[in-house]
Amino acid sequence: MGSILIKHILLEGQPRNVLIEGKRFKSLDAADGAAAETVLDGSGMALLPGLYNTHTHSAMTLLRGYGDDTSLEQWLDDYIWPVESRLTAGQLQRGYMLATREMARTGTVFFNDMYFDLDTATDVVADSGLRATLGWVMLDGHPLSNRMEVMERIKAWRDPTGGRIQLAMAPHAIYTVARDEIVRMVRFARENGLRIHTHLAETRTEVANCVRDHGMRPVAYLDSLGVLGPDVVLAHCVQVNDAEADLLAERGVTISHCPCSNMKLGSGIFPYERLIKAGCRITLGTDGASSSNNLDLREAMKFAALLAKVGGDPQLLPASQVFDWATRCGAEAFGIDAGTIAEGKLADCLLVDLSDVKMQPCHNLISNFVYSADSSCIAGVLCDGQILYQR
Amino acid sequence: MGSILIKHILLEGQPRNVLIEGKRFKSLDAADGAAAETVLDGSGMALLPGLYNTHTHSAMTLLRGYGDDTSLEQWLDDYIWPVESRLTAGQLQRGYMLATREMARTGTVFFNDMYFDLDTATDVVADSGLRATLGWVMLDGHPLSNRMEVMERIKAWRDPTGGRIQLAMAPHAIYTVARDEIVRMVRFARENGLRIHTHLAETRTEVANCVRDHGMRPVAYLDSLGVLGPDVVLAHCVQVNDAEADLLAERGVTISHCPCSNMKLGSGIFPYERLIKAGCRITLGTDGASSSNNLDLREAMKFAALLAKVGGDPQLLPASQVFDWATRCGAEAFGIDAGTIAEGKLADCLLVDLSDVKMQPCHNLISNFVYSADSSCIAGVLCDGQILYQR
Repeated sequence: MGSILIKHILLEGQPRNVLIEGKRFKSLDAADGAAAETVLDGSGMALLPGLYNTHTHSAMTLLRGYGDDTSLEQWLDDYIWPVESRLTAGQLQRGYMLATREMARTGTVFFNDMYFDLDTATDVVADSGLRATLGWVMLDGHPLSNRMEVMERIKAWRDPTGGRIQLAMAPHAIYTVARDEIVRMVRFARENGLRIHTHLAETRTEVANCVRDHGMRPVAYLDSLGVLGPDVVLAHCVQVNDAEADLLAERGVTISHCPCSNMKLGSGIFPYERLIKAGCRITLGTDGASSSNNLDLREAMKFAALLAKVGGDPQLLPASQVFDWATRCGAEAFGIDAGTIAEGKLADCLLVDLSDVKMQPCHNLISNFVYSADSSCIAGVLCDGQILYQR
Repeated sequence: MGSILIKHILLEGQPRNVLIEGKRFKSLDAADGAAAETVLDGSGMALLPGLYNTHTHSAMTLLRGYGDDTSLEQWLDDYIWPVESRLTAGQLQRGYMLATREMARTGTVFFNDMYFDLDTATDVVADSGLRATLGWVMLDGHPLSNRMEVMERIKAWRDPTGGRIQLAMAPHAIYTVARDEIVRMVRFARENGLRIHTHLAETRTEVANCVRDHGMRPVAYLDSLGVLGPDVVLAHCVQVNDAEADLLAERGVTISHCPCSNMKLGSGIFPYERLIKAGCRITLGTDGASSSNNLDLREAMKFAALLAKVGGDPQLLPASQVFDWATRCGAEAFGIDAGTIAEGKLADCLLVDLSDVKMQPCHNLISNFVYSADSSCIAGVLCDGQILYQR
């Protein structure tokens, strides 16, 4: 069982020696001479929890900057779907590798993924040291997503990482998967203890088409199929009214807010006040790099906070709250015993370089990290008690 | 006269040797063996123009993260103004030093500043190697801005940098400077060949109060005083109607759009379509780090582009256009013979590391730089033919 001692690092404003044994924080106030296999010098740095990205399509990083500044329909029809239908296993592998490297470098320790090829994704995540929930995206008629085959692959799957990977069923959306298929996928998920991950209420078009086709708005439609529950993660939830917000809160679903994607695709402004007032569980995602155009969840925090204020109230979504979404709330939503720095918790954390010019002066550490920093301020990233990235 | 040869760097997709002699690009296709005092290896990098930040209060970087997430009025009254009235020359110097370091590190070669103490600012800018337009901010009754004294300091001022610094008169805003004082400042500016830099039409409150006090909206009011012209830079211009947009275009003013500040303070959504349709000259600013909360103009490009799309049309403000605002348009607005990479132009440029994980893959260089990059992708910054920053 490995051990790491991080010496002289600021934790809630106090210099501490932080001892990690195995996967967990053993002591947040260890002695200077505490024995450890690895000793890191945390002088001039602060220790913060790692970041939990609750919605992405990681290997789509291959398509970063491909088809920008077009409408959602044109982007999907003319750019993304034609390329995706021809992706090879080798390309997917390189996409997952690029994505996990970017996340580790930018402070993310966990991602909730929706993409193709479970086995390739598993191998890359295992090597990367990150945590992930992997969902094979299901689209009716897509050459890479055959439900029977995917279910077989899931049944045969074994976690090689000792707990860093969980699986999800991931029907793409209500407009790309038929009603009966959604029901079958959700039943399979619940029979096999998998989470459920889908897009919902992303655009006005989706709402209008759902009303036309099913006589209900998207939230009511998914609820009528028995889908909504605490095991469900819904990406976006931009086009949601008061009654829908109440229902999402009542069902205990997790919402993954993806501000950069929503803004860049013109999907609408996330209804922050409505969802908070209803008591919804909100977390933060980047979406895929093809729409957002990176996997930097720290950047997404700044976008989320500023987007909440754009309607006129600068007091909405303060830095501490969006930081909580990106850390504690994200970990909790996936049942990961981490998200805060505490003795006994899984050791997922960041070393933030306070000497970086963007962190100076430091009137408020969380404000600086959310509103000013970038990845150049991140000097180290640990996940599950292992060093993912060190500058 | 110094010379720099940047070898094997990508310029518009082709590997080139770029020769700088003195302050200017001498050749964009120099021989491998071209003689130069300094040789930089540009392998795996792309050459882009430097960034021109057209509105900031640079030394306010001292107040980064101080008084976040409060209303504009509370932020100014309870946090910013009480501290600012007590700033010492030594504190200002440290503020300017921190700001110029941050800008050099994040790719900015020029900033249009509005703050206190011209001589301290001049010394720091001279040492930093950046370009600047320095305006001493004038607020009625402020202990640090006495008009007569400021005019004397300006008359006695000499540029120690051989052309990197220009001066401006900077009345803070129409709600903090009386009508007659604005008129006197603008007359002084035009008699002495200075630019004019002010805030305008930032909030709904400013518009309402202007109508109440002067019977006109802000743009009409400043025009009635004879202020608006091609020597004027107006920060914000968020609360502007169609007729005002037409007048701003007709007068040839430069608008400095500061998306992060406008979003964070809840000032409103910059009327991109209206201003573009009217033919306004638009450039990009960060505003001070006390509101934005950094001086990273590359980040401001992403915020500007995504904010333009938030109303529902993802085709508005494509990456290439916002990049043009931050480079060519910014330089042009201040009469700086730079902003593009061309033989004979002043050598202001960035070395962008294409091997950085955020720049991979590279379907579209400008898209990656605007939408995905951060300062970790910037490997070098040159201004006026000198190296400002090199990793």
